[in-house]
Amino acid sequence: MKFFRLDASLRSEGSVTRMLADAVEQEWRREFPDAQIVRRDLGRNPLPPVWPEAVAASLSAPGHVRSDKQIAATALVAELADELLSADAYLFAIPLYNFGVPQHVRHWIDLIVTDPRAADINTQLLAGRPAVLVEARGGGYAPGTPREGWDHLTPYLRHILGDMWGLDLATAEAELTLADVTPAMEHLRDLARQQLEHAHATAIAHGASIARRLRPASQTAERRPA
Amino acid sequence: MKFFRLDASLRSEGSVTRMLADAVEQEWRREFPDAQIVRRDLGRNPLPPVWPEAVAASLSAPGHVRSDKQIAATALVAELADELLSADAYLFAIPLYNFGVPQHVRHWIDLIVTDPRAADINTQLLAGRPAVLVEARGGGYAPGTPREGWDHLTPYLRHILGDMWGLDLATAEAELTLADVTPAMEHLRDLARQQLEHAHATAIAHGASIARRLRPASQTAERRPA
Repeated sequence: MKFFRLDASLRSEGSVTRMLADAVEQEWRREFPDAQIVRRDLGRNPLPPVWPEAVAASLSAPGHVRSDKQIAATALVAELADELLSADAYLFAIPLYNFGVPQHVRHWIDLIVTDPRAADINTQLLAGRPAVLVEARGGGYAPGTPREGWDHLTPYLRHILGDMWGLDLATAEAELTLADVTPAMEHLRDLARQQLEHAHATAIAHGASIARRLRPASQTAERRPA
Repeated sequence: MKFFRLDASLRSEGSVTRMLADAVEQEWRREFPDAQIVRRDLGRNPLPPVWPEAVAASLSAPGHVRSDKQIAATALVAELADELLSADAYLFAIPLYNFGVPQHVRHWIDLIVTDPRAADINTQLLAGRPAVLVEARGGGYAPGTPREGWDHLTPYLRHILGDMWGLDLATAEAELTLADVTPAMEHLRDLARQQLEHAHATAIAHGASIARRLRPASQTAERRPA
C-alpha cells in the first residue's frame, strides 16, 4: 500500500493544513502500519524554478540535444510524476494564499503536466483513486459573507485533481484560521474553533473511510459480523 | 506619462498575447511618443524564486536582522511594487496555461503583496487607473462549449487586478489559438482567425480609448470641433 502526501504550507509550526493532514495520515497508519508514505513538501522544500526548461524539453523535436538544465528539469519531472502515478491513495494539504492556488502548488502541477505520461491533462490519469483534500482559509468565504466567491483555490483544485485527473476527492476545510491572531476577527474566535473542530473530525472521517475502502477484501470479510 | 507592461508568454516568437499587447502599445506610442514604458517580462526573464524569503522578511518583527536572501528578496519586491504603483496606465499580456493563472504571474502577485504598500490587497491600490488585459487561450471556452468553466485565469485576474487593486480593466481575448497547429482543431481554423482579428481590433480600440482618456485636457479641447 502506497500513500502520497503533498504539503504546501509555508509554515512548519502552527500550520492548520499540516495538522489536519496529520489526522488523515494517522488513520491510514492505523489501518496500514507498514504502508509507504511518499511525501512531497512544497513549503519546506521548494522545487527549483525549472518549468521553462521542462516545457522546452517536452516540446523539443526527436533527436534534439537537451541542455544540462533541460536534462535536470526532465529528471525532476519524472520523479514528481512517478510519485503521483504510483500511489494508491492521496492526501493534499493546501492553504489558500492570496485568494488562489499557491504558486508553488501550481508549479508542481505545471511540471507534472510536462511528463509524457501526464501530458494530456484531461485523461483521468488517477481515475477513481481515493484522495483527501485538506484546505485552510484565513477568513470566511461562506455564501452570504463579504468574501463569497473570493476562494479561487477550491474550484481549480477540484477541476484538476477531480475532474481532470479523476481522483475521488473528499475535502476537509477549515476557515477563519487567522481569527486568533487578528484583532478585527476577535468576535469570530468561537466560530473559528468550532470550524476547526469540525474540519478535524471531517479529516479523521475521510481518512478512516479511505482506509476501510483500501482494506483487502479478505480482511473486510473477517471483520463483518456473520 | 508612464505605462507599465507585463508579459507572461513563455514564447518570444509566435506569442498571441505579445502580438496583441504590441497593438495596444502602438496606440499609446502614437498618442505619447515620449512616454516611458516600463516592461516586466516574466516569460523571458523569470523572477528568482524568492517568495518564501519575501514573506519571512515581511512578517519579521521590528529589529529582526534580515538574512542576505531576505534583503535581496525585499529589494526585488520594492522594485516590482515601484513599477506597479508609479504607472498611469497598464497593459497585462497573459496566456492561459493549464487552465489557470500561470505560476510565474501568480509569483509576481504574491511578491508584490509582501511589499508594505501593497500588503492589504483589497485596498484599491490603483483605483480607477486604466488597464488593458490581453489574454490568449489555446482552446474554446465559450458558454455551451465542452470547456465552459475551465478558464480559471480570467476570474482570478479580474478579481485581483479589478476588484482588489481597483484597475479599470478592459479586456481583449483570443481563443482557439492552437487551432493552426492542432490537427483535431482543423475545422476551427476559420473561426480562430476571425477571433484573432476581433481580439486584435479590440486591443487597438482599448489602447486608443485609454490614450484619448489620458490626453491632457488642453489638448483634448484643441482637438474638439468648436
